[in-house]
Amino acid sequence: MEMFEDKNPKRTPISELGEFGLIDHLVKAFPLKNSSSILGPGDDAAVIDFNGKSTVVTTDMLVEGIHFNLSYVPLKHLGYKSVIVNLSDLYAMNALPQQITVSLALSNRFPIEAVEEIYAGIQLACEKYGVDLIGGDTTSSTSGLVISITAIGSANQDEIVKRSGAKANDLIVVSGDIGGAYIGLQVLEREQAVFEANPNTQPDLAAYPYVLERQLKPEARKDVRGILEGLDIKPSSMIDISDGLSSEMIHISKASNLGCKIFEDKLPLDPEVIRVCEEFNVDHTTMAINGGEDYELLFTVPLEAHDKIKDNPSLTLIGHMTESDGMFLVTRDGAEVPLTAKGWDPFLNKDAD
Amino acid sequence: MEMFEDKNPKRTPISELGEFGLIDHLVKAFPLKNSSSILGPGDDAAVIDFNGKSTVVTTDMLVEGIHFNLSYVPLKHLGYKSVIVNLSDLYAMNALPQQITVSLALSNRFPIEAVEEIYAGIQLACEKYGVDLIGGDTTSSTSGLVISITAIGSANQDEIVKRSGAKANDLIVVSGDIGGAYIGLQVLEREQAVFEANPNTQPDLAAYPYVLERQLKPEARKDVRGILEGLDIKPSSMIDISDGLSSEMIHISKASNLGCKIFEDKLPLDPEVIRVCEEFNVDHTTMAINGGEDYELLFTVPLEAHDKIKDNPSLTLIGHMTESDGMFLVTRDGAEVPLTAKGWDPFLNKDAD
Repeated sequence: MEMFEDKNPKRTPISELGEFGLIDHLVKAFPLKNSSSILGPGDDAAVIDFNGKSTVVTTDMLVEGIHFNLSYVPLKHLGYKSVIVNLSDLYAMNALPQQITVSLALSNRFPIEAVEEIYAGIQLACEKYGVDLIGGDTTSSTSGLVISITAIGSANQDEIVKRSGAKANDLIVVSGDIGGAYIGLQVLEREQAVFEANPNTQPDLAAYPYVLERQLKPEARKDVRGILEGLDIKPSSMIDISDGLSSEMIHISKASNLGCKIFEDKLPLDPEVIRVCEEFNVDHTTMAINGGEDYELLFTVPLEAHDKIKDNPSLTLIGHMTESDGMFLVTRDGAEVPLTAKGWDPFLNKDAD
Repeated sequence: MEMFEDKNPKRTPISELGEFGLIDHLVKAFPLKNSSSILGPGDDAAVIDFNGKSTVVTTDMLVEGIHFNLSYVPLKHLGYKSVIVNLSDLYAMNALPQQITVSLALSNRFPIEAVEEIYAGIQLACEKYGVDLIGGDTTSSTSGLVISITAIGSANQDEIVKRSGAKANDLIVVSGDIGGAYIGLQVLEREQAVFEANPNTQPDLAAYPYVLERQLKPEARKDVRGILEGLDIKPSSMIDISDGLSSEMIHISKASNLGCKIFEDKLPLDPEVIRVCEEFNVDHTTMAINGGEDYELLFTVPLEAHDKIKDNPSLTLIGHMTESDGMFLVTRDGAEVPLTAKGWDPFLNKDAD
């Protein structure tokens, strides 16, 4: 009951717009005015510029019960992952991560030892990625845990890579392999359900080392920048895979006003991912294009880069950009299936509680 | 019930350390390593430096039921205030705010129109303070509203003012007047209690315009930097008053390894604050030194600046730094009462729900 309640407010559920729709809708009213504000909302990170050096800024908020489930996510892993998801956004701009700020809200069910575990994971990520913790805020909440991290990176102005720079006929490249993090989550949720039915059982996780690590302890691709520099290639566009290949491919295509074709038989999958997909009776191509949280980099390069990339063990050519505005997965039998953004939306999906 | 539960974990409540103690405890493990990281946790904001220009970064998280109560805080005011509290931290470093990122977590009881109200307040603050919204995150929560804002400012390296720079005999100065925001909160909580007892009553707020504005729509002191430049004064230390004058004075004194004396009869109070304190039967000096959220600036200047400041209507001389490590309020009758940090701690205090 609110003292200043509007008696007849219009109430449109946020799920009608979804996360991206809502953000687009809200930021329209905020044109950039300061000369140091180079790039605003709508890419992996924002770019500000002081004295010709670009500072790249990104922020992500992780909420208990929405983004993670503490029944099966150890706090140290959570701290680590919450840094990684932000660094991944900076690498996706071709920037070098430098600093983070960490804000935590915790209810009184969390003792100091729990916060220490979260920070131990944050510290591990800071050390591995050469990042300094420079500030933050720690406060209480009435329920649950919220982690908000802002990461700051640097780059020379001409090094920044946006989503919007792809050209027709550019090749589409993905680092590592995809689909593992999401099928890893399915394993954890199944074991959690078994555990809840009988708390005396021990979770049976030994058969899933790769997909569980992909879900619980993902890494950001700090190596890709160096690999591409070594090959003398600058990506024309780049994004990280947080919501799934299909969703990210649509972002690049729309931002670049182009279409794309990616080829089912080129998608890089780990053998364990294929095996676990079979065990769960799900199509591994579906997992590869719609499963999120892999934190691989998806980028486009000029056609001429083909021979430099084709044999690189860290990179896979999976398709090319097209003049038309169609975005397609070309299946093994040659059918062209339109890509759809089945990526994870926090206003539509929630982790099991 | 956790799958990976430690059967005998040590559990120390966070309230044992409090907010500042917890942050100090956690950040010890994080030495700064990057050359661009100039100043880490422990001041109003962090300082990073690229090419000789300082970038100043601060972040604050506001949690429903802890930092605000939507029963009497309109969403637009909440959006406005959540920007102001961050800008105030940048002004306290003598930096110019340039950009913000905004992350929101909302439960499904918030429709799009509610988010629009929050953003309308954010936009108003951005326009008034010349700040660009450059990014953020919007996600759902299982309960309540969380707002996390990171603000970025710029300054030349030699303009930055820290908490630690005060010298013995420096004069202590405060902008504006103090105590209003906290007594304004008492008015709102009283009217809320009346309203809950009888929802057909209308809140009686007309007699409290100043203190309610101080609580619901605070401003950050963007003018102080210019005033001091005009007087050719650079503060030796500075902090903003978010947790109360006493708490902030202790921060400056400890960071500068000095003591201080502030004088009861010099504290700037608005006549309405004094009147409402009488109505609530609370001592207005207590309100002035322990009430938080005024977002005034508290700073020290060399003794020589006395004559330039003494007649400035925006600034009040309230005391001086001392060689000894004692921190005192000198009362009207000349008694020296030790200052204590009775400031607001989110792990000890909560708003009424």
